Amino acid sequence: MRVTPDQPQASLAGTPEEGRAPIVRYERGVSMAAADDAIAVEEPLEIRLGQTENGQLQHRPVSITMRTPGDDFELAAGFLFTEGILQSRDQVREIHHCGKGKGATNTLRVDLAEGVAVDVKRLERNFYTTSSCGVCGKTSLESLATGARPVSPPAGFELDSRLIDELPARLQAQQHAFHSTGGLHASALFSRTGELLMLREDVGRHNALDKLVGARFLAGALPANDTILFLSGRASFELLQKAVMAGIPVVCAVGAPSTLAIAAAAEFGVTLLGFVRNQRFNVYTGQERLASR
Amino acid sequence: MRVTPDQPQASLAGTPEEGRAPIVRYERGVSMAAADDAIAVEEPLEIRLGQTENGQLQHRPVSITMRTPGDDFELAAGFLFTEGILQSRDQVREIHHCGKGKGATNTLRVDLAEGVAVDVKRLERNFYTTSSCGVCGKTSLESLATGARPVSPPAGFELDSRLIDELPARLQAQQHAFHSTGGLHASALFSRTGELLMLREDVGRHNALDKLVGARFLAGALPANDTILFLSGRASFELLQKAVMAGIPVVCAVGAPSTLAIAAAAEFGVTLLGFVRNQRFNVYTGQERLASR
Repeated sequence: MRVTPDQPQASLAGTPEEGRAPIVRYERGVSMAAADDAIAVEEPLEIRLGQTENGQLQHRPVSITMRTPGDDFELAAGFLFTEGILQSRDQVREIHHCGKGKGATNTLRVDLAEGVAVDVKRLERNFYTTSSCGVCGKTSLESLATGARPVSPPAGFELDSRLIDELPARLQAQQHAFHSTGGLHASALFSRTGELLMLREDVGRHNALDKLVGARFLAGALPANDTILFLSGRASFELLQKAVMAGIPVVCAVGAPSTLAIAAAAEFGVTLLGFVRNQRFNVYTGQERLASR
Repeated sequence: MRVTPDQPQASLAGTPEEGRAPIVRYERGVSMAAADDAIAVEEPLEIRLGQTENGQLQHRPVSITMRTPGDDFELAAGFLFTEGILQSRDQVREIHHCGKGKGATNTLRVDLAEGVAVDVKRLERNFYTTSSCGVCGKTSLESLATGARPVSPPAGFELDSRLIDELPARLQAQQHAFHSTGGLHASALFSRTGELLMLREDVGRHNALDKLVGARFLAGALPANDTILFLSGRASFELLQKAVMAGIPVVCAVGAPSTLAIAAAAEFGVTLLGFVRNQRFNVYTGQERLASR
């Protein structure tokens, strides 16, 4: 299976693989029943980058991640974009699985278009500085700043604050794999008026977001600067980093944000809401985009 | 601050740093109150390894992770042990922070004892294989198998299945930072009879477990083969890998396990329980260690 920039895949809900395993249920210390249960699939994915140098295709591994199979091409594209390796879909000639045997779909290759050169060293630098100055939250923010600009929503972008309360239920209605396995994180993109545009699921929350951003990247639909990102879990720095790269102006998380996530949101002009559940939420940054009726 | 093998730190509950930030609470779309709230701290930690070669100390970075400051030495020791780099605390001469300025505690160095050589390349190999065979779950298990043995609890090791139901409440009673921030994962070690032995918290669940295992490592108390590990979230392959390296025979998770976590538990003889909450749980592997009264 191959995807090229001319054939973007951008289904609403993605296709996370589901597994099954035998279990025994206990209740109050007593074994109740043996059953066959749905389990979130976790498998490694190696992402390789193919570059034509002197007429010869060279390829090398750039990342390995534990992920839920399904939407792999979007995952790879989103990872490379949010890490600052890729800037536009024109840079990609094609993406295809290239593993053999049992794990055939656990290795994929992103082949760059002719003449495109990317800065692979950036991957090492992204979270890295020389120890002469030490690393700190500020270093992480500065590293992000070299590849990202403040988000820039359309003029007059404003959210009805009551709309936020409705997003969790709208997401859950579509989150099939989570319902059956209980083991997947979700990232969802909503329109400003609360329409669910896209949903991706994965055992790793960074992967779920990479799949989402990658789908938009392959569809040529970035920046996503007129959307709301909804995260099923907590908001870490890494997730804010990816949202900023995708130009998303509002991030809502069911769980808590971290200090560095808040700092990144403040630095790049993202409205950050946490503990979005049960008709409540906390605003950490960017309250000016919320309109109460 | 320094720690040496003669001065192990192994407090029951660890000391995760807490931050604060201004927030605005909304309820049903209406802003209710501005407040100053406790926030889970997230900061990068660079782990460096110091080795004396030809009478000269050489040190190089081996990892960078986003973590909650506090218990850093335990985190570093646990990481290096569960990755198969370190085998015993005698190999460590000392661990100390070595950053400068604002992020002074965000860089630390683990200096090896004289004459100790470690296989740093292992870090790259751990999740890595050549693409000629591809990567798959089996590869991950095989990679783990080169550094781990099946867990080996004492003869007659058996758990009262009703005891399991009590562990969540016993953990929550001690989980201070999670209560205040809502943003930390916990790893806890219980005795076979349900006594809470140790608890560590972090924004990253792998870090929380590394801190726990590292505390035992520095105290010379591994393998932890007569204990129960309790995880506040989901059980991924990576967490099972660390539990196996520490020789822990029972892993209980509040959330769901992944397919590869179940495979690792089966392969290395770990009893794996998931969805441990509300007086219920599922058994995925190793049911023979559960005794019902």
